[in-house]
Amino acid sequence: MDEQSIRNQMAHAVEEVRTACPLAGSITNNVTVDFVANAQLAAGGSAAMVYLADEAVALAQLGGAFYVNMGTLAPVLEESIPVVARFLHEAGKSWVLDPVGLGIGAMRARILQELRSCKPSIIRGNASEIIGLAGLWGLEGDALDAHRVRGVDTTDEVDVATAAAVALADFTGGAVAVSGEVDLITDGKTICLLQGGSPFMAKVTGCGCSLGGVMAVYSCVADPFIAALAAAALYDVAGARAEAQADAPGSFKVSFIDQIYKTTPEDVASNPFALKEV
Amino acid sequence: MDEQSIRNQMAHAVEEVRTACPLAGSITNNVTVDFVANAQLAAGGSAAMVYLADEAVALAQLGGAFYVNMGTLAPVLEESIPVVARFLHEAGKSWVLDPVGLGIGAMRARILQELRSCKPSIIRGNASEIIGLAGLWGLEGDALDAHRVRGVDTTDEVDVATAAAVALADFTGGAVAVSGEVDLITDGKTICLLQGGSPFMAKVTGCGCSLGGVMAVYSCVADPFIAALAAAALYDVAGARAEAQADAPGSFKVSFIDQIYKTTPEDVASNPFALKEV
Amino acid sequence: MDEQSIRNQMAHAVEEVRTACPLAGSITNNVTVDFVANAQLAAGGSAAMVYLADEAVALAQLGGAFYVNMGTLAPVLEESIPVVARFLHEAGKSWVLDPVGLGIGAMRARILQELRSCKPSIIRGNASEIIGLAGLWGLEGDALDAHRVRGVDTTDEVDVATAAAVALADFTGGAVAVSGEVDLITDGKTICLLQGGSPFMAKVTGCGCSLGGVMAVYSCVADPFIAALAAAALYDVAGARAEAQADAPGSFKVSFIDQIYKTTPEDVASNPFALKEV
Repeated sequence: MDEQSIRNQMAHAVEEVRTACPLAGSITNNVTVDFVANAQLAAGGSAAMVYLADEAVALAQLGGAFYVNMGTLAPVLEESIPVVARFLHEAGKSWVLDPVGLGIGAMRARILQELRSCKPSIIRGNASEIIGLAGLWGLEGDALDAHRVRGVDTTDEVDVATAAAVALADFTGGAVAVSGEVDLITDGKTICLLQGGSPFMAKVTGCGCSLGGVMAVYSCVADPFIAALAAAALYDVAGARAEAQADAPGSFKVSFIDQIYKTTPEDVASNPFALKEV
Repeated sequence: MDEQSIRNQMAHAVEEVRTACPLAGSITNNVTVDFVANAQLAAGGSAAMVYLADEAVALAQLGGAFYVNMGTLAPVLEESIPVVARFLHEAGKSWVLDPVGLGIGAMRARILQELRSCKPSIIRGNASEIIGLAGLWGLEGDALDAHRVRGVDTTDEVDVATAAAVALADFTGGAVAVSGEVDLITDGKTICLLQGGSPFMAKVTGCGCSLGGVMAVYSCVADPFIAALAAAALYDVAGARAEAQADAPGSFKVSFIDQIYKTTPEDVASNPFALKEV
Repeated sequence: MDEQSIRNQMAHAVEEVRTACPLAGSITNNVTVDFVANAQLAAGGSAAMVYLADEAVALAQLGGAFYVNMGTLAPVLEESIPVVARFLHEAGKSWVLDPVGLGIGAMRARILQELRSCKPSIIRGNASEIIGLAGLWGLEGDALDAHRVRGVDTTDEVDVATAAAVALADFTGGAVAVSGEVDLITDGKTICLLQGGSPFMAKVTGCGCSLGGVMAVYSCVADPFIAALAAAALYDVAGARAEAQADAPGSFKVSFIDQIYKTTPEDVASNPFALKEV
């Protein structure tokens, strides 16, 4: 894909969501669920959150994509998350996995193992979650080692996750987004690095979760790589603009939601990024 | 009831809540629970949220009214919601039902069927939820058909729900509030149409839920029709004023909570509405 | 402890948290969980919330302290809360108990009874919760009666809880914080009374919960008495400053989180308080 084509598709996804108001249902954590919903609405989509398996499947049928965030696991989710993921995979619908908290507790590991064969369209996490998931899913063979070499002379944490991100995207056939000071997004063939955002995004709970939720909204109208890229670029623009208007995290969050709403398709498509082939 | 008497009772309800700070407990969804509580506090009431059946009954005993919102069902709620609704009905206490998500999943339908005989004092929902609930409760006979005729030459979605709203209010003996661009509130005999609010209220999650929560607070001191009307008028005034101060949903929500707090009994009672007999 | 030494330790705790960004995991209620996390982040700490027992223990191992708030009990918490509290006690780690809702429901009483032998490092609540917990734990003997005499000629609600607070601190060997217009903090030997904050703090849900969460963050780097005192002083300063910038609860909450972030170690250490020996 050439850069201009990518930028055109990003702008189209942002525009199309504002026009069509597509629904992306969610199973997401209770800490940031309000932020996820409000970010999805501000981006122009529709939001609905559930816990029960049959309700999640009903939302998955109704919506264009789905968001699964494993933050605050509860007993009911051990059934619901795999059931809806299986349904989405078999229905060929896009879904976003946010493996937050990977490494904490036995249920999380069991669910994540079950999700391996459901191949999430987008996996979004920080560097250690992406590396951890690649390990958990056994993607540590030759492919991962080969990729790992590329990042060997860097200490940047997103770079360290490059090999794992590419291996995961190779495996799922979708996209992987690594959030950090630099965001890395790959479909296994192309790697896109984005900069922007604000240090305040680490001082407000849920910037990562709500980014995953917006990726799901964009996935209703775009392929995984473009959806992940458009959402990450939206967050970079909105974060930088919010920081220009706020000097502390309370007002930053308010302004950030405002900026998600105000940022135009052209703003998103114009956000600087660098492309390289794997 | 004549219009002036209604306006006087609305002002009295708003004033009385600010003076007495009555408690309305809730079983409500996890997406907007913080907004429900903050709106109840801003309106002058007290808030408390629970999930367990015996805790809900204890709150129902302590409080003047109760709010049940079915947004994010969890297994424990299949017992708790019917138990507290039965208690409230038998104790003659007001309670507000928000049948959000009607049509999604089997548990929701089972719970709503059990709530039929518990006759909620106020049912609040959008047009499709109100129509759906009237259907689920079998209120589709002659009465509903008779009412339906009145709305036949309109395509306005709230008008479409008029027959269902009146049928539900006839059945419960309470009030029904249909939220939309125009709000419709009826006690089965009188229909009140209110305008106001802001398009931003659809861009912030929980404006409907928190409206239901405030109706419960007002139900501590007023009959269902007046409580529903006062809360809807409060939201119309606060929404319009917040929109005058904000140009995006993040700052709109902050300003909206501020305006719930600042709006006076006189402001609420002066909000334009139209009355007609059924 | 002399006053200057206390003030120095308060400043040190606030500074140290901003430098080290320590993790205090939580089991907390769903109403205010977002506020707790954002307050912990604004104070400079890290936040993570869970429900499952093994996840809570994992977080307790990873973190420097832990926060338990009993607001919205769910079935899974009947196991998780006692398990993590037992772990924390046996590991000698600080943990903060917020016995909100004491008196509502059977599970709450059962869990609180189990927590007696786990001796929370800090107990934070309003006057009636502190009195109720002292009663539930059977601290009503001579010690409590002796303390009660001291408060007999006052009707101030925090004063009324002095005996219970001192008895609880005597029993746990930790600190007890009673929130009210005047905040009382005691380690069983010294009583500290703080003033400040804002009446708006009672109009925003979660000011008490998030205070408990910040006490847990400070407990990662300070002893219970200093941690409780520093967090209470931070809230007094931030509340007063936020009130100077806001005239209603929506904008007050935003400004309050901003002020938690902006308040310096010196500001916290300079907040007026009065010390007396028990």
